[in-house]
Amino acid sequence: MSFEIAKAQLLRRGVQLESIAEIVYALQEPYHKELKLEQCLESVVAVLQKREVQYTIFTGIALDELAEKNLLPQPLQMILEADEPLYGVDETMALGITSVFGMIGLTSFGYLDKVKPEIIGALNDEEKHIHVFLDDLVAGLAAAASARIAHKSQHVNTYTVE
Amino acid sequence: MSFEIAKAQLLRRGVQLESIAEIVYALQEPYHKELKLEQCLESVVAVLQKREVQYTIFTGIALDELAEKNLLPQPLQMILEADEPLYGVDETMALGITSVFGMIGLTSFGYLDKVKPEIIGALNDEEKHIHVFLDDLVAGLAAAASARIAHKSQHVNTYTVE
Amino acid sequence: MSFEIAKAQLLRRGVQLESIAEIVYALQEPYHKELKLEQCLESVVAVLQKREVQYTIFTGIALDELAEKNLLPQPLQMILEADEPLYGVDETMALGITSVFGMIGLTSFGYLDKVKPEIIGALNDEEKHIHVFLDDLVAGLAAAASARIAHKSQHVNTYTVE
Amino acid sequence: MSFEIAKAQLLRRGVQLESIAEIVYALQEPYHKELKLEQCLESVVAVLQKREVQYTIFTGIALDELAEKNLLPQPLQMILEADEPLYGVDETMALGITSVFGMIGLTSFGYLDKVKPEIIGALNDEEKHIHVFLDDLVAGLAAAASARIAHKSQHVNTYTVE
Repeated sequence: MSFEIAKAQLLRRGVQLESIAEIVYALQEPYHKELKLEQCLESVVAVLQKREVQYTIFTGIALDELAEKNLLPQPLQMILEADEPLYGVDETMALGITSVFGMIGLTSFGYLDKVKPEIIGALNDEEKHIHVFLDDLVAGLAAAASARIAHKSQHVNTYTVE
Repeated sequence: MSFEIAKAQLLRRGVQLESIAEIVYALQEPYHKELKLEQCLESVVAVLQKREVQYTIFTGIALDELAEKNLLPQPLQMILEADEPLYGVDETMALGITSVFGMIGLTSFGYLDKVKPEIIGALNDEEKHIHVFLDDLVAGLAAAASARIAHKSQHVNTYTVE
Repeated sequence: MSFEIAKAQLLRRGVQLESIAEIVYALQEPYHKELKLEQCLESVVAVLQKREVQYTIFTGIALDELAEKNLLPQPLQMILEADEPLYGVDETMALGITSVFGMIGLTSFGYLDKVKPEIIGALNDEEKHIHVFLDDLVAGLAAAASARIAHKSQHVNTYTVE
Repeated sequence: MSFEIAKAQLLRRGVQLESIAEIVYALQEPYHKELKLEQCLESVVAVLQKREVQYTIFTGIALDELAEKNLLPQPLQMILEADEPLYGVDETMALGITSVFGMIGLTSFGYLDKVKPEIIGALNDEEKHIHVFLDDLVAGLAAAASARIAHKSQHVNTYTVE
């Protein structure tokens, strides 16, 4: 099943779903005191079950791995090796993940992509691998899972017209 | 001229272009040691000269002002009064500003929208006015102006194929 | 319930969910010969049950109605009255609806927004009302409902790695 | 220079800038009777001079070419070979091109991606090559160039507040 493949590909690149869940927990805990880490993990799993999310992960990880193997045509190979700050295809691609639970995810995505907490920073600092796409994919997954928790927790606030 | 109108509308809502330039400076200074505040202001002006940016500002500010005057139909009026965290139209709309110098602006936008430095935080904390859209518009302006500076400063990095 | 409000607002502006379902049917029938109109209607309902979709509809319809009542600040009032072709906030806003079942919806959205079949064209041609946002909202709803049908019908195509 | 590389890569994949200009002409001619084909070509060139556009083209063409050489990891290789209709990364990526002259480009992009006129259809029908990304990239280029013409031609319509 394609969920299992996406999960295995993330693991192959050093990312456990639990590490993403921890980022989600840190983002959402201030707003939901009763939040449990398992709920965050369940939310990450729900995001990763969406086909468009899986397809985006397959594509981004393929580009990172091909760059590591020096298999990309030039000048793309050089651009990814340099982690060129003006290259924005990784952000664009992550938008397809971030938006699966609505555009409120944009805020968390940008924040995570800038601050690079936990596993996102570890991926970014690691020298042996090329992670141009992976850090944005993980930030996108965490942002979407976080948006999903926000949506789930607030069915109380319903706006009606009397 | 519509640039002047957009500038005047921002001012009417308490936002000087200089305040946006300061946010841009704080974002970009770590990467460009020689950066001057005037260059940041010039970049904010360049973003605000784009018609799609002006149109987005007119629309977002109109919604904030109509909400203050209690002129919006329900349930939209209630949603904006509550600054409902699941309302994502402000983020979506700001995407049209953020992306005018490429998708690399998404990162700064999200960061600013989450951390709310300087004028963005002041707008958010102010109780007398409704600023559901304005803080996202300002974050979008600063993110786009910041992306423009990144693009301008790096024409050195050109990737060629020998 | 907010679904009922969104449905009622669309109806108030002359749009029945059945009319949107007919557009979805015309888009998807070539690919799914066994498709029924009821499935299309069910898909439109599923899209409209998403909170971010409802919020976008509330906002777009509010802007159309306020323009009709001449209640928008200038120059926004003039821009909407002229249905200015360079005004892109309606397309940006509709992106928040179109993307709820993935970015494959972008294609149908643009196609519908250009060709303006059925109810979309009727809204556009109608002289008495201002429908700057409504035609894009309806195109976005039909595109998202269409993407949802595509996703549902194809769980057969699963890609596995042996 | 990276513009020349992007142009050469498009040519290598069978796309002349003139073919894109013809699509732009067909889109915009109904609105601008005096439009010349050279203006459309100049607009395509202006779009292709933007770095984020070039980077997107490098990335999309690399994926198409690697798929042809059977060099992509599974299941991505299979998905691109099948031109899987639910794969939306090509549309997402093209969004980064389409939006460089504002979100009004979304409409033309979707229309072109659905109707597939001229070179876009030829790319799509060709059996020897894999063009999962290329047709969306070309539709994105034509849509952005078309939006640029719309913006240029209408500096007459300025909205002022007396």
